[in-house]
Amino acid sequence: MTDTPPRKLRYAMVGGGRDAFIGAVHRKAMALDGQIELVAGALSSSPGKARASGRDLGLADDRNHGDWQALLADELKRPKGERIDFVSIVTPNHVHFPVAQAFAEAGFHVVCDKPLVHTREQADALVATVAKKGTVFGVTYNYTGYPMVRQAREMVRSGLIGEVRKVVVEYNQGWLASHVEGSGGNKQADWRTDPARSGAAGAIGDIGSHAENLVATVTGLRVESLCADLGALVPGRMLDDDGSLLLRFEGGARGVLIASQINTGLENDLRLRVSGTLGTLEWHQEQPSRLVHLPHDGPLQVLTRGAPWLCESAKRASRLPAGHPEGFIEAFANVYAGVAADIRARLEGRTADPLAADYPRVEDGARGVRFIERTVASAKSELKWTPW
Amino acid sequence: MTDTPPRKLRYAMVGGGRDAFIGAVHRKAMALDGQIELVAGALSSSPGKARASGRDLGLADDRNHGDWQALLADELKRPKGERIDFVSIVTPNHVHFPVAQAFAEAGFHVVCDKPLVHTREQADALVATVAKKGTVFGVTYNYTGYPMVRQAREMVRSGLIGEVRKVVVEYNQGWLASHVEGSGGNKQADWRTDPARSGAAGAIGDIGSHAENLVATVTGLRVESLCADLGALVPGRMLDDDGSLLLRFEGGARGVLIASQINTGLENDLRLRVSGTLGTLEWHQEQPSRLVHLPHDGPLQVLTRGAPWLCESAKRASRLPAGHPEGFIEAFANVYAGVAADIRARLEGRTADPLAADYPRVEDGARGVRFIERTVASAKSELKWTPW
Amino acid sequence: MTDTPPRKLRYAMVGGGRDAFIGAVHRKAMALDGQIELVAGALSSSPGKARASGRDLGLADDRNHGDWQALLADELKRPKGERIDFVSIVTPNHVHFPVAQAFAEAGFHVVCDKPLVHTREQADALVATVAKKGTVFGVTYNYTGYPMVRQAREMVRSGLIGEVRKVVVEYNQGWLASHVEGSGGNKQADWRTDPARSGAAGAIGDIGSHAENLVATVTGLRVESLCADLGALVPGRMLDDDGSLLLRFEGGARGVLIASQINTGLENDLRLRVSGTLGTLEWHQEQPSRLVHLPHDGPLQVLTRGAPWLCESAKRASRLPAGHPEGFIEAFANVYAGVAADIRARLEGRTADPLAADYPRVEDGARGVRFIERTVASAKSELKWTPW
Amino acid sequence: MTDTPPRKLRYAMVGGGRDAFIGAVHRKAMALDGQIELVAGALSSSPGKARASGRDLGLADDRNHGDWQALLADELKRPKGERIDFVSIVTPNHVHFPVAQAFAEAGFHVVCDKPLVHTREQADALVATVAKKGTVFGVTYNYTGYPMVRQAREMVRSGLIGEVRKVVVEYNQGWLASHVEGSGGNKQADWRTDPARSGAAGAIGDIGSHAENLVATVTGLRVESLCADLGALVPGRMLDDDGSLLLRFEGGARGVLIASQINTGLENDLRLRVSGTLGTLEWHQEQPSRLVHLPHDGPLQVLTRGAPWLCESAKRASRLPAGHPEGFIEAFANVYAGVAADIRARLEGRTADPLAADYPRVEDGARGVRFIERTVASAKSELKWTPW
Repeated sequence: MTDTPPRKLRYAMVGGGRDAFIGAVHRKAMALDGQIELVAGALSSSPGKARASGRDLGLADDRNHGDWQALLADELKRPKGERIDFVSIVTPNHVHFPVAQAFAEAGFHVVCDKPLVHTREQADALVATVAKKGTVFGVTYNYTGYPMVRQAREMVRSGLIGEVRKVVVEYNQGWLASHVEGSGGNKQADWRTDPARSGAAGAIGDIGSHAENLVATVTGLRVESLCADLGALVPGRMLDDDGSLLLRFEGGARGVLIASQINTGLENDLRLRVSGTLGTLEWHQEQPSRLVHLPHDGPLQVLTRGAPWLCESAKRASRLPAGHPEGFIEAFANVYAGVAADIRARLEGRTADPLAADYPRVEDGARGVRFIERTVASAKSELKWTPW
Repeated sequence: MTDTPPRKLRYAMVGGGRDAFIGAVHRKAMALDGQIELVAGALSSSPGKARASGRDLGLADDRNHGDWQALLADELKRPKGERIDFVSIVTPNHVHFPVAQAFAEAGFHVVCDKPLVHTREQADALVATVAKKGTVFGVTYNYTGYPMVRQAREMVRSGLIGEVRKVVVEYNQGWLASHVEGSGGNKQADWRTDPARSGAAGAIGDIGSHAENLVATVTGLRVESLCADLGALVPGRMLDDDGSLLLRFEGGARGVLIASQINTGLENDLRLRVSGTLGTLEWHQEQPSRLVHLPHDGPLQVLTRGAPWLCESAKRASRLPAGHPEGFIEAFANVYAGVAADIRARLEGRTADPLAADYPRVEDGARGVRFIERTVASAKSELKWTPW
Repeated sequence: MTDTPPRKLRYAMVGGGRDAFIGAVHRKAMALDGQIELVAGALSSSPGKARASGRDLGLADDRNHGDWQALLADELKRPKGERIDFVSIVTPNHVHFPVAQAFAEAGFHVVCDKPLVHTREQADALVATVAKKGTVFGVTYNYTGYPMVRQAREMVRSGLIGEVRKVVVEYNQGWLASHVEGSGGNKQADWRTDPARSGAAGAIGDIGSHAENLVATVTGLRVESLCADLGALVPGRMLDDDGSLLLRFEGGARGVLIASQINTGLENDLRLRVSGTLGTLEWHQEQPSRLVHLPHDGPLQVLTRGAPWLCESAKRASRLPAGHPEGFIEAFANVYAGVAADIRARLEGRTADPLAADYPRVEDGARGVRFIERTVASAKSELKWTPW
Repeated sequence: MTDTPPRKLRYAMVGGGRDAFIGAVHRKAMALDGQIELVAGALSSSPGKARASGRDLGLADDRNHGDWQALLADELKRPKGERIDFVSIVTPNHVHFPVAQAFAEAGFHVVCDKPLVHTREQADALVATVAKKGTVFGVTYNYTGYPMVRQAREMVRSGLIGEVRKVVVEYNQGWLASHVEGSGGNKQADWRTDPARSGAAGAIGDIGSHAENLVATVTGLRVESLCADLGALVPGRMLDDDGSLLLRFEGGARGVLIASQINTGLENDLRLRVSGTLGTLEWHQEQPSRLVHLPHDGPLQVLTRGAPWLCESAKRASRLPAGHPEGFIEAFANVYAGVAADIRARLEGRTADPLAADYPRVEDGARGVRFIERTVASAKSELKWTPW
């Protein structure tokens, strides 16, 4: 450990003002470790609310902007030593693309919420921009920040459960089980069920994309073709609130993906089961510190966060000893820690340690957009299999 | 309670000799309550083994037969007061039809294991025979004998969880995760993976049929169309060992059914989740005495077997106080108790109490055969939806 | 396997008539495997009810007695080939001693419910009689019949968890949380809270004795001294309904034993935790097929009934494959199977296989009586430690 | 919400430098909500390490002190608008008293880790000082910061489970199951097993005190007398590593408290069961978002953090929607949030909202010291009951 510790990274936030839910989570995640600080923002699409939100958060007046264009212009005018290190985009989905594209094009590092953008073309454009600029671009698929998801990834990738044959992933919630949108009382419900702001998909876009990313992260499998049934089961809903997919992966593994927001009583029931020739892994987001390993030839094991026998990647993602629960915010913080490690490496002119710079990237976001697009296409098709 | 208790019912068993697994379970289930006794049998397709098995079980020589034809002929010759009350058929699947049809045609009550028969035509013939003869015909979909499955049925049918929107049923096992058949060491694996004896389907026939029946029993929903992906994922296997289906039910509910025998490390993981507009129910066979109820508007509840607030049907299916675990054999015994109640009612010239005569019937078995047939058809189809 | 299978063992039951709870459980347990049959009885202390109960169960009139003395006299008159092989005593506690002593003295094998008798003197007398006669005497500490309890015993005894340091056993129920006795509506509550019929202890005698036996069975540890706090927490109750003990074992291990019947909402919450220098074991009766092993140096393991890696003793105590729940009746049946194996060995003039003749004996019952006596003495003492 | 948000509170930390465990947790907890900032410190008893640690954390040189005396002197010299709002003391136990006393005496608000001090006399002195100065003094019994502990408190205090009859609290860990102290490799183990630094008790002081506080917080019961067995079960250990207590509460309830650090394989197993005449509550720290309620007359309920039907106190202690796991740090942060609310109220010249200023106080800390003292006295006594 050195006596001259690295300075805190500085960020600006776009979106996440008063009444928003996820922006505050991002801020808490970044605050947790005392390594990242908020210095600027354009916290709402409404200029008045944007500035009021910025004042709540203690932003200096000259860095508290009414819209993201002003934020970007201002940052570009500032000297390097004062400028933000990255921007965090936590707006509703339809705003992701213009903001992300503009900041990336201007050479800023970016963190953007998921699903990344609305269309495959936007995704491709963003990937191209990031490649051209060589910047850092993280996507907050926050569930992959859980230590035991990283442990699962290590166990699958290293061959511990053999060749993967079957994957079942579910993401079930109940909060959209009745027609809560449009009443003005539920901002989340309003925009998430509105195609103009949410995109072509509802539940599949919001939570199905997390499920897709979880499978891809843990298994590395690539979808070859899929068969989707999407439904808007609550009368009057404009986007799907329930989806089920059959998956075929390259190499022959099969899968099922379920994403539903009409499962009354369920909270945030994201769960994954991966069966290989040598064993099965099970993980459940609501008990994130446990990873169940069922070997074909021995007793069930429960690996827990904080244990000395976990892989290095899981260990690094953990802050507390075993038995001291960590949760959602820590997982989120791990995604940001990965981004921060990558940015710091660039600031210091070195290549980041891959174990440290462990975060979902723009390509993961683009694959997620592709997944949504292919799912919607399949749902409309009379043929069983829609190729990837 | 009367001072002249009813005599024990007498049964013959076809199949279930030495080395067989499920026959012994049927016998234990029937022995449990001391109300049913084994008096005759043709316990194997091999006459020598049949008779040796009968001697193991204490059968009298003149009722211990080398084949089922001899058993049937002998029973028909006996006076009514000595004759069996019913036959229990626990052979491999391909033998079900001729035996069941012959005994039913001869006017005997029958209990037959599932899947009932190989083809829709056989199923229709059997339904017709039973209807013509007016006899009792039970099918041992044993999982519906669990008290908490009956509680779930009552809660769904009475509207407690509102209109059903989504059903997810899984039946996962790991015992066929490697190529164990054909070695001679695993009789179960041998016949269950052999199309000649098992029928057109493997996992879908063996355990998928239980899953289908569980959904039908609990929800009463009727499948409108289905979309299946079946795979023989273990190299060299002749029948499917992994299947996943999307389901659409009449009335608009959606469903997913998974049946897989290659989930390494999983034991007998049958689980059901039914989400309605007012709440969700979850049941897991490996913890059969618990039924989780997640109301939309209140805390999660866990109903347990033996509690005074359960429905009458669940109470009747229970033998011990709460907290004293009951299991698979008791559930099996409940199916037989239902059959026995129906037979006793006929012996006494009355209509059975529906709460007592609660068991899966030949029509349930026929619907299960239909399910297998439609699933296999869908798996071969390039179209997404195969109508029921 | 031989072609001349052993005949069924014959038993008489004392107690267990109409309205009794536990007698029916014993009968189901004995019926389960088809190896033991009821042939005689004196099923109630009321002669009329005794005979009516016998008729319910199909007893022949000449073996259906109004009191146990008549049963004993009749059995002694019968030729050996017709006589019972053993008697099963399932009366309230205060009747255990005279019946057990009389049958044992007459040379009969005996199975008796727990707690064995009321006083240490009675227990010593019974042990002496059994030793003198050389007969089989089983005590239905049924929880030790669970396969995973036997697995725990093997793991502790073989040193897998090292030297035992701490034992925590709890047995919590809620059924006596209000003053249900004396109303006539709850026969169990009536006699179990009545010192004349239940003995010097209530909860400690009824369920504390199971807890003591579970610890002794699994660990083999001997109590050196104990410190008890017993309370009758429900106003008006005549015996303890809640007890907690500190235990010191020979060799230095420490323990806590809790037995309480006023834990509202709890069902039959018997649980054991044994910590040794190398690992900890946890078992919970309400999920009896799971044994949790927490090694000091590796991930938590859950061993499940039916797995091929269990010890021989656990395997023999199992009837179904893993994942097919077994329960209370099977555990009970295992105690009887152990007794039966011992009786059969004697019938055949050989020493029983210890793995087969695995059941709690009269000495275990006597130690249980000692435990109750010492606990009651400690509860009255002002000194902390009461020696064993 | 106002447009002029309150400024962040400023704090200094004493202890918690490089290599310390709990100091970092305190800092993360305070950072989480962006309302409290570290501005000064004396982060180690070693001046060099103190200053290096302060630099790691970005402290300005003039507020980064080599010892706490210098910190205190410096703060007293600063103008009010720059001075710290409170000090957070996270040193080993033996340092708590002088630091806390000095800062309290100087009129500073204080947060101090538990157990508060070594002796009853110290505790009384501290209580007197705080009373005299009228300052805020929080003790980080962090487990009471969990939302579901607050929900349990509300349910017990409001009479929902009736009159409390039995309390069982356990706090089990395994990290001291071998003789890890003295090797230099485990700083925690070193000081916690050293009487000079840890105090008169080991496990009872470190974790038993949490258990005592949990019971007192949830139930409000007062211990009348207790009976303790303490052991140093690891050879060579100087303080207890395993303790078990029988408790009698004023009013007649009984209890058991277990605190052990030699339970191999257990992580941080703090669990509470409270049985009243109408129901039982169970809470387990390793699944902190669940509170199990077992009513005497209805099905088991699982209340989960984030649900709309929780009490106001539980709701305020929650940051994320249900199903998005919160953990240890959030609970810790809630204690600090309570302290902060009280300090802010004083800054604004008003009485704090009791729902906001919800945190363990100096009197709770003093009661914890009393508990340790009485427990140690009981452990040495030959009499069963040691009065409080």
